[in-house]
Amino acid sequence: MSADDTQEAREQLIDLAAQFYDQFELGEIPHMSVPTRTKNNIEYDEDSDVWVYGDRESTRSANSVQGARKLLKAVYTIEFLAEQLEEDRSSTLRELYYLSESWDNEEAQFSSQDESNNLVEDLEIVSGVTREDFHMRPEESGATIMGPLHLREQTRRGEREIHCQEDVGEGGYQIPNNPDTIEFLDCDADFILAVETGGMRDRLVENGFDEEYDALIVHLKGQPARATRRITKRLHDELGLPVTVFTDGDPWSYRIYGSVAYGSIKSAHLSEYLATPEADFIGIQPADIVEYDLPSDPLSDSDVNALESELEDPRFQTDYWEEQIELQLDLGKKSEQQSLASRGLDFVTDTYLPERLDAMGVL
Amino acid sequence: MSADDTQEAREQLIDLAAQFYDQFELGEIPHMSVPTRTKNNIEYDEDSDVWVYGDRESTRSANSVQGARKLLKAVYTIEFLAEQLEEDRSSTLRELYYLSESWDNEEAQFSSQDESNNLVEDLEIVSGVTREDFHMRPEESGATIMGPLHLREQTRRGEREIHCQEDVGEGGYQIPNNPDTIEFLDCDADFILAVETGGMRDRLVENGFDEEYDALIVHLKGQPARATRRITKRLHDELGLPVTVFTDGDPWSYRIYGSVAYGSIKSAHLSEYLATPEADFIGIQPADIVEYDLPSDPLSDSDVNALESELEDPRFQTDYWEEQIELQLDLGKKSEQQSLASRGLDFVTDTYLPERLDAMGVL
Repeated sequence: MSADDTQEAREQLIDLAAQFYDQFELGEIPHMSVPTRTKNNIEYDEDSDVWVYGDRESTRSANSVQGARKLLKAVYTIEFLAEQLEEDRSSTLRELYYLSESWDNEEAQFSSQDESNNLVEDLEIVSGVTREDFHMRPEESGATIMGPLHLREQTRRGEREIHCQEDVGEGGYQIPNNPDTIEFLDCDADFILAVETGGMRDRLVENGFDEEYDALIVHLKGQPARATRRITKRLHDELGLPVTVFTDGDPWSYRIYGSVAYGSIKSAHLSEYLATPEADFIGIQPADIVEYDLPSDPLSDSDVNALESELEDPRFQTDYWEEQIELQLDLGKKSEQQSLASRGLDFVTDTYLPERLDAMGVL
Repeated sequence: MSADDTQEAREQLIDLAAQFYDQFELGEIPHMSVPTRTKNNIEYDEDSDVWVYGDRESTRSANSVQGARKLLKAVYTIEFLAEQLEEDRSSTLRELYYLSESWDNEEAQFSSQDESNNLVEDLEIVSGVTREDFHMRPEESGATIMGPLHLREQTRRGEREIHCQEDVGEGGYQIPNNPDTIEFLDCDADFILAVETGGMRDRLVENGFDEEYDALIVHLKGQPARATRRITKRLHDELGLPVTVFTDGDPWSYRIYGSVAYGSIKSAHLSEYLATPEADFIGIQPADIVEYDLPSDPLSDSDVNALESELEDPRFQTDYWEEQIELQLDLGKKSEQQSLASRGLDFVTDTYLPERLDAMGVL
C-alpha cells in the first residue's frame, strides 16, 4: 500500500474523531451510527453484484454511560490507529486488545477481545477504510498460490519478485497478510482454481494440473482468510481470470464458496473489497455424488439444519443452489472432495475437473 | 528423498508381507505385533534422549475373524504403498481410505478413516519406515520459515534454491510436506525461534527480529505439523542450531512445546525422527505472568485438569516444569504471548526475548 493510501486512511480516521468534536460544538450528544449486522439486514446490490448491508442502523450514543464508554473507546482506538499509520507500523487485533491495558483512562480499556474486534469492524464500516489499510493484521495467515503468475511484493525489506511456479518450493507462494502490497507482473494462467483442502491442493500440484491447464491453484485452507479472498478478487478483477471454487460437498463447504463469492454477513461492508460474485462453484455438487457414485457419509442433524438455513439465506437463493440443496436433503448424503480418489488418484485431474470446467464454460 | 531411500522403503514393506508368507509356510497363524500406544507404555530412552515406546505389545493375529481382517487390510495397504513407491507417486491418508473402496476384496476395504490412519501408523512402527518415506502426505500443511537460511528443495519440477529472507515475501518460505527433500546450503542463523501464533510471528518479522538477532523464525501454527517438527529437528541436528520454543502460557501450549521437544504419545515411534529433546521453552512461563505483570485470564476447569495431567506426564517430570506448573496452579492464571503488547509493541523484541534468551544462555 502506498504512502498516499496510508495518509488517506489516517485522514478518514481523524475525520471520524472530528465528527464527535463537531457534535459537541453544535450542542448535540455525540453519536455514531452503524448498519445492523444481521442476516435480515443484508441485501443484493445490483451495481456491484454483491450483498451489502441494508438501511437498518444501530446508534452508539453518549446518552447512556454504556454508549459514552463505547465512544470513548472508539476515540482512543482512533488515536492509536492514527499513530500507527503515522509511524508506518502495524499490529494485530489481539495486540490492540492487550495494548489498551496501557491506556491512561481505565474506562477506555477493552474488557474482552470481542469488544475490540467489533469496534474495529465498526470503524471499518463508518470510515469506509479496510482493516488492512488501518494496518491491522489478522491472526489467521493467508494460504498459498501455485501457478503461472509472476508478481512483485512490496515488503518492509524491499521489493521481491517471485514466480509462483519457478521461484517457490512445492509448498507454493505464501500470500502475505495484506495482498495489496502485490503487483501482478505477468500471468499465463487461464483461470483460478480455489481449493478447500490441503490434501486436494497437493494432489493437483503433484498431478501438475496447474501446468497442464494453466491454472492458478489457490489453497483456501478451509474458511478462507481475508488475504486469500482479497488476492482472489484482485486476480479476477485486474487480470480477468475466471474464478472456480472446489470444496467438499457439504453445507459448511458451500459457505466457504459463499464467502469467496458473496462475502460474509459479518463483513458485508467489505464485500466490494473481498467478494468475487462471478466465482463459480465446481463441486463437489450433490449431483456429483449420484453421477460419479462417490463414497459418502449420511447427513447429520446439524448438516440438515445448515442446509435448511442456506435455503433461507439470500445469498443462496438461486435456482442452481435451491436445486442442489434440495437434492442433497433428498439424498441424505455428503461427500468429501478427496472421495474422488475412490476412482483412482488421477480421476480428479483426468476426468472430474476437465468435465466440470468444460460444462461450466471455463475450458 | 533419494531414489535409494524410496527403494529401501519399498523393500521394508515387502519384507513385512514376506513375514506373513513365512508364517504361513511354517504352519503358524499369521500375526503382527505392535507396541501398545498409551501413556503407560512410553519411556525415556537415554541414548537418544527422547521418549519411546516400552515393551508392552499388542498382537494382531489371524486367529479371529477380526484379526484376520486387519491383516488382510494390512496386506492390501502394503501392496498399494509398494506400487505408489514404484511409480514415484504420493497420496494422503484420506485418499488411501477412499481408494480402498476400489479394492476387489470388500473385506479389505476400510470402514472408517480412523482405521486406515491407525493401520498406516502400525506399518510405520513395524517397518521402521516413516509415513513420509511411504510417500503418504499429511492433510495438515507445514508452516513457514523466515530467517538467514539458504536452501535447495528438490521438487517434482526440479530443484529450487531459495533464501528464506531474500527470495520470499513477508509470508516467508512455505515448508513442504516432506522436508527431507531439502538440502541446507548456507545458514547465518544463530538459533531457531519456534513461535506458536501467527500474530506473534508477524510481530517478530515486522520488528526485524530475525535480522537483528540472526534468528530463524519458524511458525508453529498451533500444534505443529510433522513437517514443521521434522525441519526443526534437522536444522538442530545438522546445523547445530539451538531450538527455542515461544508459546502462550497455558497447558495446551506446553503440549505444543512438548511435541517439539519430546514427541507425542501417539507417535512415540517417530520421536527420533521428529523430536528435538534439546529444545528449550522460552515462555510465556507462569513466572513471567508475575514478573512482567501480564494481562491474564483465570484458569478454566479444563485448564486445571490439563495442568494436573501434565504433572503426571513423564515428559514433564522435570524440576523446571513441576515448579512452573505448580506456580500456575497457585496463581490460577494464564497469559497469551501477545499479552506482552500491554507493555508496548516493541517490548517483546526489545526486552522480553533478549532477557529470556540471555538467561537461557542462547544469546
